[in-house]
Amino acid sequence: MPQQPLIVGRPVLLVIDIQKGAFLGGGGIPHMPRYLENMANARRVIDAARAAGVPPIFFQEAHRPDHVDFGRELDGSEDVHCVEGDPGTEIAAEETGFLPSDYFIRKRRYSCFFGTDLEILLKGLKAETLILIGGLTDVCVHYTFADGHQHDYHCRVVEDAVGGSSDTAHAASLNAMEYLQTGARRRTEEILDAFAARPRAA
Amino acid sequence: MPQQPLIVGRPVLLVIDIQKGAFLGGGGIPHMPRYLENMANARRVIDAARAAGVPPIFFQEAHRPDHVDFGRELDGSEDVHCVEGDPGTEIAAEETGFLPSDYFIRKRRYSCFFGTDLEILLKGLKAETLILIGGLTDVCVHYTFADGHQHDYHCRVVEDAVGGSSDTAHAASLNAMEYLQTGARRRTEEILDAFAARPRAA
Amino acid sequence: MPQQPLIVGRPVLLVIDIQKGAFLGGGGIPHMPRYLENMANARRVIDAARAAGVPPIFFQEAHRPDHVDFGRELDGSEDVHCVEGDPGTEIAAEETGFLPSDYFIRKRRYSCFFGTDLEILLKGLKAETLILIGGLTDVCVHYTFADGHQHDYHCRVVEDAVGGSSDTAHAASLNAMEYLQTGARRRTEEILDAFAARPRAA
Amino acid sequence: MPQQPLIVGRPVLLVIDIQKGAFLGGGGIPHMPRYLENMANARRVIDAARAAGVPPIFFQEAHRPDHVDFGRELDGSEDVHCVEGDPGTEIAAEETGFLPSDYFIRKRRYSCFFGTDLEILLKGLKAETLILIGGLTDVCVHYTFADGHQHDYHCRVVEDAVGGSSDTAHAASLNAMEYLQTGARRRTEEILDAFAARPRAA
Repeated sequence: MPQQPLIVGRPVLLVIDIQKGAFLGGGGIPHMPRYLENMANARRVIDAARAAGVPPIFFQEAHRPDHVDFGRELDGSEDVHCVEGDPGTEIAAEETGFLPSDYFIRKRRYSCFFGTDLEILLKGLKAETLILIGGLTDVCVHYTFADGHQHDYHCRVVEDAVGGSSDTAHAASLNAMEYLQTGARRRTEEILDAFAARPRAA
Repeated sequence: MPQQPLIVGRPVLLVIDIQKGAFLGGGGIPHMPRYLENMANARRVIDAARAAGVPPIFFQEAHRPDHVDFGRELDGSEDVHCVEGDPGTEIAAEETGFLPSDYFIRKRRYSCFFGTDLEILLKGLKAETLILIGGLTDVCVHYTFADGHQHDYHCRVVEDAVGGSSDTAHAASLNAMEYLQTGARRRTEEILDAFAARPRAA
Repeated sequence: MPQQPLIVGRPVLLVIDIQKGAFLGGGGIPHMPRYLENMANARRVIDAARAAGVPPIFFQEAHRPDHVDFGRELDGSEDVHCVEGDPGTEIAAEETGFLPSDYFIRKRRYSCFFGTDLEILLKGLKAETLILIGGLTDVCVHYTFADGHQHDYHCRVVEDAVGGSSDTAHAASLNAMEYLQTGARRRTEEILDAFAARPRAA
Repeated sequence: MPQQPLIVGRPVLLVIDIQKGAFLGGGGIPHMPRYLENMANARRVIDAARAAGVPPIFFQEAHRPDHVDFGRELDGSEDVHCVEGDPGTEIAAEETGFLPSDYFIRKRRYSCFFGTDLEILLKGLKAETLILIGGLTDVCVHYTFADGHQHDYHCRVVEDAVGGSSDTAHAASLNAMEYLQTGARRRTEEILDAFAARPRAA
């Protein structure tokens, strides 16, 4: 199977659910051991994207204070999480370099496409390649990749800049994404090199 | 054609795009003469809904400051409108009685269902009837009604609590909604009576 | 307001709900007087599209035999209609020149986008302009136009090749479409000229 | 984590992509060793569902003959597959007991919700629980489960009546589904018992 090129057409960077909770501990969601190291790589990818003029889009999973929109999310391994107004629900601004002027999308479900204006934004940006970082590899990242794939986007996941609920689940989801698009799995250094090779942003 | 009942199952009130711009004048969108009188009726419906425990959901049309998400909205009769950060884009809080604790949904397109979490919220609320007020009758209200109809909701429009881009367009869209569901067109007094007849909210 | 160009990028022709019922009489749906004359124009547009290499996509409104999917469609002016297996539900093949090899999409709701693979097909075709013919002007055509508009397509309606539930509703919906995109309303002769001016299909 | 009940409200059975190709060999899609044994279990579940009045819905992945709708599906591990008109694309009617009167949905993408009328049908049936069988565990089944979960359905997967692209991928996806809803993984015998315990269909 020939590896797909890293970037096709215009890329955007999807920064998925890097919220304060993971740095504060707790938060109702399990994390694999190297989670925070991988989030440090995510920061490097974000900075490189900005320098190269690749727009980052920041996603926040957030549930309404009355819990009306949890749907079936409490039927499984996750406890109450990401409630609006809780400190852990905020985007981890210092850790990610999030700016008030950045594209920001709040979501109620795992996929960044589900019940959001992401498709509107991507069409406006004329984006063709989605580069995914953040968490959880095996939930929001995986299901966003699957939807991006089904919406015809070239999708890439930075395997050492995403974190899973466990090492096993992280690895399995990376394999599942690679199944969909050969060459989808990339490493931070590759992304940094590819961004550095682009013409500088205006 | 027998008239459908006013309320089936649990109702919610959709308060569509009652934003400061209409009260400040200007804003890039045309309005029919009695627009503000009808918005005063909208306020009466909102207050009665609260008293009856019918949750209002406030919608704000808003476009990103870089205009990336206007799509085709500037190809027709509307000029640049509802940009985030402009004073006219804010929900008309005093005029509607909007509270920080109210359900609030920002949207980029005309239909309240398009690129939003409305379906998630409606499922969470177990809503079956949507009561529509706000504006424009012939754009956001009409296309929200059509989508609500296609999503199997009982839809009602309060004809003297919605405002159109012109009298003609307002009347035509009310007729189109009545075509879809007989008895969809209702008047403010009918709604107030129906809400008053419900058991009081806890 | 400057008129938008007739065709931007690659066009496709949406042939909406031209089914046998309208030609057989009856069918549970009201029609304006000149309906069949306008459908004859629709045929001319289809033939010209083929000659110019503009792909037609044929839509069929169809409900399952047990009526499970009517949703709220029987709450208004329409009676039971377009049931699978009824002769009137078939695409009007002779009248439209429909071929087995044509793109065909069955739909359960009014908008051609709702619960169908239309967006998948349009992305595959790299279509940017949608040209609408068929019926009803004020129902399936209008709501398909609104969704196409919201999905960022350039939308055009051939005003004498669409038919409404009544003359009044037909005229009102044409105005509503023109409100969304200036120059959306076009006549059959204009479309024929524009198609004839394109390079011939391979 | 308490196990969720097997059936909540009205159940339906989603029979995902059991097509002739898997029985004919080839077909452009990899399969795990026990694939056909698990499809034999799927047949037992289908027969029991019918006897209990639980409606099966049969899905067929199918691509248009000109390949216009493959999107990104050929960028990864799958070769050209499920083209309309190919013998392997047909529902495996003998093997599954598929009847002309059964609910049938053709899909272009992996998730049974993507670009289809499934939500319309589920609302019409007032379904609350989705029971999934068929293939591939790690592609169409997994992504349908994720979408069903995000649409607020109780989702169950019959682990010995689904088949994956490999044993590893099959096992990983079953774990991922169990992560979302505790007690999602069930065995054929449990399902047969639960169906047998229901009141007989009329």
